[in-house]
Amino acid sequence: MVTLEEAKNAFKPKLKPIEWKKDSLLLLDQSLLPFQTVWVKLTDPEGVASSIKNMQVRGAPAIGITASYGMVLSVRGDNLDEAISSMRKAKAVLDSARPTAVNLSWATSRMLEKANLAVEQGEVKDVNELRELMEREANSVFEEELEAELKMGIYGLEKINSGDAVLTQCNAGGLATGTGLGTALAPVKLAHALGMDVSVFAPETRPWLQGSRLTVYELMTDGVKTTLITDTAVGLVMYKGMVQSVMVGADRILSDGHVYNKIGTFKEAVIAHEMGIPFFALAPTSTFDMKNRVEDVKIEERDPNEVRYIRGVPVAPAEVEVYNPVFDVTPPKYVTGIITENGIIYPPFEKNVRKIVER
Amino acid sequence: MVTLEEAKNAFKPKLKPIEWKKDSLLLLDQSLLPFQTVWVKLTDPEGVASSIKNMQVRGAPAIGITASYGMVLSVRGDNLDEAISSMRKAKAVLDSARPTAVNLSWATSRMLEKANLAVEQGEVKDVNELRELMEREANSVFEEELEAELKMGIYGLEKINSGDAVLTQCNAGGLATGTGLGTALAPVKLAHALGMDVSVFAPETRPWLQGSRLTVYELMTDGVKTTLITDTAVGLVMYKGMVQSVMVGADRILSDGHVYNKIGTFKEAVIAHEMGIPFFALAPTSTFDMKNRVEDVKIEERDPNEVRYIRGVPVAPAEVEVYNPVFDVTPPKYVTGIITENGIIYPPFEKNVRKIVER
Repeated sequence: MVTLEEAKNAFKPKLKPIEWKKDSLLLLDQSLLPFQTVWVKLTDPEGVASSIKNMQVRGAPAIGITASYGMVLSVRGDNLDEAISSMRKAKAVLDSARPTAVNLSWATSRMLEKANLAVEQGEVKDVNELRELMEREANSVFEEELEAELKMGIYGLEKINSGDAVLTQCNAGGLATGTGLGTALAPVKLAHALGMDVSVFAPETRPWLQGSRLTVYELMTDGVKTTLITDTAVGLVMYKGMVQSVMVGADRILSDGHVYNKIGTFKEAVIAHEMGIPFFALAPTSTFDMKNRVEDVKIEERDPNEVRYIRGVPVAPAEVEVYNPVFDVTPPKYVTGIITENGIIYPPFEKNVRKIVER
Repeated sequence: MVTLEEAKNAFKPKLKPIEWKKDSLLLLDQSLLPFQTVWVKLTDPEGVASSIKNMQVRGAPAIGITASYGMVLSVRGDNLDEAISSMRKAKAVLDSARPTAVNLSWATSRMLEKANLAVEQGEVKDVNELRELMEREANSVFEEELEAELKMGIYGLEKINSGDAVLTQCNAGGLATGTGLGTALAPVKLAHALGMDVSVFAPETRPWLQGSRLTVYELMTDGVKTTLITDTAVGLVMYKGMVQSVMVGADRILSDGHVYNKIGTFKEAVIAHEMGIPFFALAPTSTFDMKNRVEDVKIEERDPNEVRYIRGVPVAPAEVEVYNPVFDVTPPKYVTGIITENGIIYPPFEKNVRKIVER
């Protein structure tokens, strides 16, 4: 097994989608890639929430990191009480930007709890010191994420052989996580960096086309051989044995192994199961929702015009009724394993998830 | 069971996508729908072949009807020998326009055989008489198709209850068949015409978006409640029990029940199978290929730019590698039944297909 040190030395990400600039946050606008490279400068939590809502930043871990810095930007006021009050309000605004993304409230809670504790215990004397503490905490969220991804990459690497092609979905790469490495793409990127012959099949992933726009862009930047397919071709690619595994990210994973991820993931899991191809979800343990059950989780729906139009061009009659869910849920039956920074979780998930997540 | 007469009286198609005008063929250009309504006037078989190749006309039965009229347009020359020679050449040109569509060569063969026989047996005295005979034969292809669809609609109706929603794929409607009724959409259109409460979920069907552009347009024209979804949402719609059956067309069906249809059909079949939802392919018996086996049939691939661009707008880096298969194949295991004009074929297909097709 590759060590963390070896992984760090092998993989040098070429993209830096989130950059902290002390008094502002620079975000690479993912809604414009790969056609335009635009950096959005954010100076307050409301702007950060808008960027999350507008999907200028997307992907569960990237949203977590971005929200952490959004919380840093919310540390303002004349005294600590005002600063904490401002942080509380910012948390509410940020949390509501993408209700399904559990990393979002995980990150804002972590920041707020850290601030509360520091104030209560007198660790910080004034707003400036609180802000510096929050900045260090947000940096830790980033660095922990990158290290977690390197570990996921190392575990996932054990499931890849030289010559393999991996099917993914959406973009669970370094753009999605903000680190330049990624979750679902970490094993294949690491394999490539270590000189293995690997490739990726990327479905375009309607309605937002994150596959065509982001995964392809990111993997080409890193030099990994990539083939773009339509979402309709996913089945044939597996039927013909053109891929040896499926590796996807996750937006939320329940304690019984239900995996919420970008719409279209479920179909890949079912077909992989039928074709005997292993299906892995890759996500940091922060993605686990240990409280809710499948009947409690609402699937977010978005604007019908995302389906009626593609990049502003009409593709259907304007008045057609549309059902546009953003996520789907893959039952544990179809999940071969969940790859986390703490190791790979195999079924029975009801029993094994806790062992890894609550470690 | 509804009679053919009752079905004919109930359903009056509002669209006429193929119109024969004695010296020319008018085709409704399906590549421009629903944004522009353009009729293409064709006067020679080469133009007809181009229209098939460019997908101005698409769908297996519509291609068969169009090719039949293309053969009528090829009856030219100073004598019967020249006319037959011209028809032979036209058949080769037409057959190569869409190699996977078995209806195409079925129709051109039927026309040429009829012509050969008539000449051999002295049934026609000159080129004019041959042309008139061919015209009647092409009209028969059209009328037989419409009657076959009405019969498929009647058989399929037995599989639909009031309140049902049907998931389809691509456009296997009256645009695809040229008659205004359709194959996969015949049962639901007939149900609607008979006053039943039915609806359709139409996946957009990348890369050509026949679902968004054609199925939605056609069903809205006929007043059938229709919901457009992305290809990625197909799984969730079945998981949530939002549809009670899947009904798709077919471009080719093998004697052992392998169904070739628009890319994306296979995934619907596999998921339907897993979710316990019946999956039906609807096609006239002319769609059956009783000779070839699955290993013999080549899956057509098309231009990578169909995936890189949508309606002229780039959606991916221009230089990305693309795999763009047009059809997929659904193994008999996932097929609940095949609905033809002669009845519904159930497994075991190896035994039951012949009974219906060679009846």
